[in-house]
Amino acid sequence: MSAEPTRALDDLSRLCVHTITTKPWSLEQAADAYAAAGIPSITVWRDALEGIGAQAAGERLRRHGLSVVSLCRGGFFPHVEEAARRAALDDNRRAIDEAAALGAPLVVLVCGAHPGQSLSRSRAQIQQGIEALLPHAEQHGVRLAIEPLHPMYADTRSAINTLGQANDVALAIGSDLVGVAVDVYHLWWDPALEAEIARAGRAGKLFAFHVCDWKTPTVDLLLDRGLPGEGCIDVRGIRGWVERAGFRGFIEVEIFSTKYWEMDQHQLLTRVVEAYRAHV
Amino acid sequence: MSAEPTRALDDLSRLCVHTITTKPWSLEQAADAYAAAGIPSITVWRDALEGIGAQAAGERLRRHGLSVVSLCRGGFFPHVEEAARRAALDDNRRAIDEAAALGAPLVVLVCGAHPGQSLSRSRAQIQQGIEALLPHAEQHGVRLAIEPLHPMYADTRSAINTLGQANDVALAIGSDLVGVAVDVYHLWWDPALEAEIARAGRAGKLFAFHVCDWKTPTVDLLLDRGLPGEGCIDVRGIRGWVERAGFRGFIEVEIFSTKYWEMDQHQLLTRVVEAYRAHV
Repeated sequence: MSAEPTRALDDLSRLCVHTITTKPWSLEQAADAYAAAGIPSITVWRDALEGIGAQAAGERLRRHGLSVVSLCRGGFFPHVEEAARRAALDDNRRAIDEAAALGAPLVVLVCGAHPGQSLSRSRAQIQQGIEALLPHAEQHGVRLAIEPLHPMYADTRSAINTLGQANDVALAIGSDLVGVAVDVYHLWWDPALEAEIARAGRAGKLFAFHVCDWKTPTVDLLLDRGLPGEGCIDVRGIRGWVERAGFRGFIEVEIFSTKYWEMDQHQLLTRVVEAYRAHV
Repeated sequence: MSAEPTRALDDLSRLCVHTITTKPWSLEQAADAYAAAGIPSITVWRDALEGIGAQAAGERLRRHGLSVVSLCRGGFFPHVEEAARRAALDDNRRAIDEAAALGAPLVVLVCGAHPGQSLSRSRAQIQQGIEALLPHAEQHGVRLAIEPLHPMYADTRSAINTLGQANDVALAIGSDLVGVAVDVYHLWWDPALEAEIARAGRAGKLFAFHVCDWKTPTVDLLLDRGLPGEGCIDVRGIRGWVERAGFRGFIEVEIFSTKYWEMDQHQLLTRVVEAYRAHV
């Protein structure tokens, strides 16, 4: 279905790295190292704001010349108890506050699921939760991206497991503030992926693009992601689909890996840059 | 969409247990224990035939009054090398031979995938592989069930990850000998599951139904399945879908679990029977 092969990226001008990728570093260490490596942008995980605060963090990142792509993460809307759903909304409003203070235009939503109720009920609660956040998001000018998660996380992390489902919810909500995040790790296996990326693009909903790789073997359900090129995902092919659908934003390297967190983080960052040039 | 709740099963007349569920037992130990527990049928994994042979195994199981539901497993068709694909076909022919000698009317196919090529290419090789087996299967009167596997196994175990894909391949092959196996562990998350079960039923393709549960947390990608009732899968609800689609066959308990293999296997079998009565 592809017209022509997607070309390698000539430079780092579209590379973004998630703070979680270099989790052992403080935000300041990450900002220093990313800027020194010529990486122009950063996505900040909320744990990286501890001890510094969102506004001071934003100022520091801007001093380093780093664009802030998004704040990770809000979500986790479903629960069997209403009080817990209300608490989740409060936490999501705080995430929007933090994004605004940080200068992040986008909050990524890991939407949640609860093993004590059906996935369809959890999905309904997700949609209600996002709709309840809209006034707060609008007030702060912060967008929200629904990130579908791999089906192996359907018990507790997300009842939205395909891009088709994420598109359905985003389109049902029908707000310019709500779109989707495409992460190759979660979606690479889906035979409908190319078509759903095109659908998201036509609707103006492609808000974010995350890359890493699926290793063989994968020894941990959460913390064994690979660098692009290290696994079986056709990362460049999916980048081509995303770009043909109109996406021109940053390409975000987001890797959770016990193995990579144990190595020297400067060496890891060098490998991230090499993997980006060679395989994204 | 369900007309009425699915009722508990009154007795064990439809219960089948996979030998892999009680992996520490030899086939003879399993046959003794299953029969003593009032379990009427068994699915045999090929490793359980080592040292006894398929024909002798079949005779022994029949002496215990056990029906043989299926042989697990064939498949693993895709490979980047043609010689390896040919070797896989030879192994599948041996599986059909073993099923015939054992008296198993069905071979379950874990269809395979190869991380060095695209999933669509692997799916094409799967279809070609099954088609190549058809004369041998027909000669022996053995049916073949395509078992879609959870997307977390898409790198090496199966490029067929939804029941929709399994139905597509079975219908494209268009042989009465080829159908699908529904395993709740692999498919519970899929929003299209009820519709695809109905589609398989209408086409006469519902050949097998496997149950277990998805535990929270799941600590191992392969060997941490739960007993029905122990996790978040609505096993009884899915049984209702399968039965409304016309399935009247055995309900097969298939659990891979390091934890359960470490316990006394008689106690485990008691828990299997209890879980079947209470949650299937």
